Amino acid sequence: MATGQPVEVYLDLLSQPCRAVHILLDCAGIPHKVRTVALRRGENRTPDFTKLNPMQKVPVMVDNGFVLTESDAILKYLATRYDVPDHWYPQQPEKRAKVDEYTAWHHSNTRPHAAKVFILEVLLPAHTGSQVDEGRLIRALSQLDETLDKLESMFLRRQSFLCGHDITVADLLAVCELMQPLGGGRDVLQGRPQLQSWRSRVQEAVGDAFDRAHAVLYSLRDRRKAKL
Amino acid sequence: MATGQPVEVYLDLLSQPCRAVHILLDCAGIPHKVRTVALRRGENRTPDFTKLNPMQKVPVMVDNGFVLTESDAILKYLATRYDVPDHWYPQQPEKRAKVDEYTAWHHSNTRPHAAKVFILEVLLPAHTGSQVDEGRLIRALSQLDETLDKLESMFLRRQSFLCGHDITVADLLAVCELMQPLGGGRDVLQGRPQLQSWRSRVQEAVGDAFDRAHAVLYSLRDRRKAKL
Repeated sequence: MATGQPVEVYLDLLSQPCRAVHILLDCAGIPHKVRTVALRRGENRTPDFTKLNPMQKVPVMVDNGFVLTESDAILKYLATRYDVPDHWYPQQPEKRAKVDEYTAWHHSNTRPHAAKVFILEVLLPAHTGSQVDEGRLIRALSQLDETLDKLESMFLRRQSFLCGHDITVADLLAVCELMQPLGGGRDVLQGRPQLQSWRSRVQEAVGDAFDRAHAVLYSLRDRRKAKL
Repeated sequence: MATGQPVEVYLDLLSQPCRAVHILLDCAGIPHKVRTVALRRGENRTPDFTKLNPMQKVPVMVDNGFVLTESDAILKYLATRYDVPDHWYPQQPEKRAKVDEYTAWHHSNTRPHAAKVFILEVLLPAHTGSQVDEGRLIRALSQLDETLDKLESMFLRRQSFLCGHDITVADLLAVCELMQPLGGGRDVLQGRPQLQSWRSRVQEAVGDAFDRAHAVLYSLRDRRKAKL
């Protein structure tokens, strides 16, 4: 269902969940307006933004006055409210339940474990000026490995995408998290052909929307590489 | 929609998310069969259970052969598939999105922070025979306090339940987490009248289903008290 004004989304494309929202809006052709909130400049802590989202987090969506936070909820709302292909968030209860199952799991697994690697390799050293804490990094990589094992052996065992034979919002949330450590030059899917093929299928399914959402991350990676 | 056989659920009522599922089934009158999986006896690691859920976690739901894990997904599936009052998981997209928003937030906030208090006060000392680590406990309680502040100032600011004026599956997930430390004799809502009133409203809304789901937790609390 199309509504009056374009959806407004408050995003920082260096944030994984923001990219997932951006990819869906972009590749499903939902009329939208991006308002950039640069986290590194603290724009999420301004009085205006805090009024919009007291949690001071991105993404935030505003659809004809309806304010919604949490990428998981935003993606599902967009897929329900707008005329997007059913595969993104299937109506059929069993298929939909499999998407909800992955997304619930995601919040305690893929998201924290991939994010931690990026925090330890990129964010913390940039903020504190200190070296990467190798001990903590090794533990974070090992936790991430367990998550990657489960993605392969459970979710992708008998199907092309995480929740079935077609792409859903779950794949967007997952792929954007797993891309994040690339900002520090690390491809966490290296040596994992099954997950690499899945990522290629996601990229193929969303087309140029993938690289458009990731341009800022690629540029971070390239700037860091040039400095070495 | 009623289906042929009763829904089967694999639960340990000492697990918070299992209780949330139990309360919905019980108070919405969904025909179901409970199969107890005692975590403390490792029944989640038997070959049969591992075949059902390779993650070795409860709850698991089986509905006419359809296997689903993750309480969040199970609750939403049950509310969709069965003839339960709409307020549990409203069809209206904006109302539904508010439930999805809370549940996404829940996984990184209410759940880990309340669980940690129980783990530190009850599970770890029981497993290792050592004293409660007071330093870690103080930090865990302080993190939980931040979560409780947000529940009050954001979710319950202008409404009776977490996602609106009526009870939803989000309230079940939240209340069951916040009850958990009671197993160790700690009521984390003490001194928080706003959250206490909300808990009373939840109890009133679900009736005896609340105490039926929590009987095992009450009994753990009472056994521990008797030992002191």
